[in-house]
Amino acid sequence: MTKLIAPVKKLPVYTVERNGNSIQAIPDLVAVEEPLQIRLQWERAGNWQEKNLYVTMRTPGHDFDLAMGFLLAEGIIQRMEDVLFMRYCKRVKVEEEGNVVIVRLAPDTICDLSHTDRNFLTNSSCGVCGKSSIDAIYGRLAEHPIAPSAVILPEVVYVLSSYLDQEQTGFKYTGGLHAAGLFDLSGQGLLVREDVGRHNALDKLVGASYREGLLPNSSRIVLLSGRVSFELVQKTAVAGVSVLAALGAPSSLAIDLAQKTGITLIGFLKKDRFNCYSHPERIHGVGGKNSK
Amino acid sequence: MTKLIAPVKKLPVYTVERNGNSIQAIPDLVAVEEPLQIRLQWERAGNWQEKNLYVTMRTPGHDFDLAMGFLLAEGIIQRMEDVLFMRYCKRVKVEEEGNVVIVRLAPDTICDLSHTDRNFLTNSSCGVCGKSSIDAIYGRLAEHPIAPSAVILPEVVYVLSSYLDQEQTGFKYTGGLHAAGLFDLSGQGLLVREDVGRHNALDKLVGASYREGLLPNSSRIVLLSGRVSFELVQKTAVAGVSVLAALGAPSSLAIDLAQKTGITLIGFLKKDRFNCYSHPERIHGVGGKNSK
Repeated sequence: MTKLIAPVKKLPVYTVERNGNSIQAIPDLVAVEEPLQIRLQWERAGNWQEKNLYVTMRTPGHDFDLAMGFLLAEGIIQRMEDVLFMRYCKRVKVEEEGNVVIVRLAPDTICDLSHTDRNFLTNSSCGVCGKSSIDAIYGRLAEHPIAPSAVILPEVVYVLSSYLDQEQTGFKYTGGLHAAGLFDLSGQGLLVREDVGRHNALDKLVGASYREGLLPNSSRIVLLSGRVSFELVQKTAVAGVSVLAALGAPSSLAIDLAQKTGITLIGFLKKDRFNCYSHPERIHGVGGKNSK
Repeated sequence: MTKLIAPVKKLPVYTVERNGNSIQAIPDLVAVEEPLQIRLQWERAGNWQEKNLYVTMRTPGHDFDLAMGFLLAEGIIQRMEDVLFMRYCKRVKVEEEGNVVIVRLAPDTICDLSHTDRNFLTNSSCGVCGKSSIDAIYGRLAEHPIAPSAVILPEVVYVLSSYLDQEQTGFKYTGGLHAAGLFDLSGQGLLVREDVGRHNALDKLVGASYREGLLPNSSRIVLLSGRVSFELVQKTAVAGVSVLAALGAPSSLAIDLAQKTGITLIGFLKKDRFNCYSHPERIHGVGGKNSK
């Protein structure tokens, strides 16, 4: 008997208004948050090894996408084929059902877990200054540089968010979910994933896109519903995506990493304007010969 | 020679507008993001032990507040006096200066680090279902239950955010920072802290409030600029605060934990309305005898 886990949940809510009428509890939808544990299994010298790798607070659904995206971003696997299969663990308490994903690595996968005993910030294995964090990530990415892709039109950028508006169903109901969307360079929407955590939303998008053969590919745009941190640029860079756009603001370290890895970073995207923080030469009429 | 670390930074930004004029790079302010490592030192059998505890991506500034708030929230220390002193580590590379905080524990502090080798989600030591996460947190809090505080007026809630608007200077300049504010039950603003990470903003607020003697105290309101996750309710509960309000949406697990720990949880706070998700009896005219 499997527990039903949905991305949204109905709960009683008191809505209080200035000059409102008598106040009653009305059922309203909220975004579901539950822990997910990723458990890794691999073979060494004929024996199966197991390690509880990571726990994240996520919105249930697309958990295999999340696991795949996370393992790729952290460099624990290099390609989709490094995973033999994924399944939910059945040896758990009833209330934990659907919250533990087992990832079985393919027999010949070389898996570097040396940095996984420390906490899972992507910078944890590489010092504690922005510069060394960027250098370490860049070192990993240098073997797969992001190719200069075709120039895209500002008109393509303006309309990206309308696809997110349309597909971001969980947010519509709850106002409590982040979204990440994948596009081709003509602005055609390919895939959307949602989660209470913006890191999880992007991991789900990247994992799903690998599974569907849409990534890695430099002729892609990723759009985020929130702000852009260092780690979100890192996840985008690992997927080889050349344009990262966001409705919110980027951080200083996000801009530094985008600059160094060759990503065009767009922030504060609205229907009639946006800011470009790195590699503007990829956008027609911006940062090229006709502008300064 | 100490590196200058500021919460905001000026960088060239291309602003692209529909029907705009020629596009040039104009300097604009962005929120600074840098790693912070918290390094713990304590005495055991006459010897000093040291452990690199945690790395978080944070906005520089109020780092000792952040360290104090984090250690309290994780239950690594129980009170401010458990810390003998805090200082920046000087044995670091130039570019890491100001990014490593050493926390020296007081000689007789009993410090439980048993769960700190796993990743630092507060639930990581307590299973991977929402129920067991809540039970574990609740177990820790049961010794210090949140007292039923005086009833507050809806009028107090409506105006909380104006204090945040006024004090949230980093956000004004960059649009890229979260804020957390502390208030008394009459709505008097006491303290505000900002950070690129919403968890960090609350850790900074709690740490600073302990250092200034404003917490723990159940006659306090915490206001968050963003959404409310499980971990943010946990940090609030550990500080003994009875009302947690937020401009954004709460998650399902945040509501569950607020309900269980006795916190009045308010979301979607606007100047003329808000939602109440738990313990409405603390708000005048809501959930009491005069309402249903």
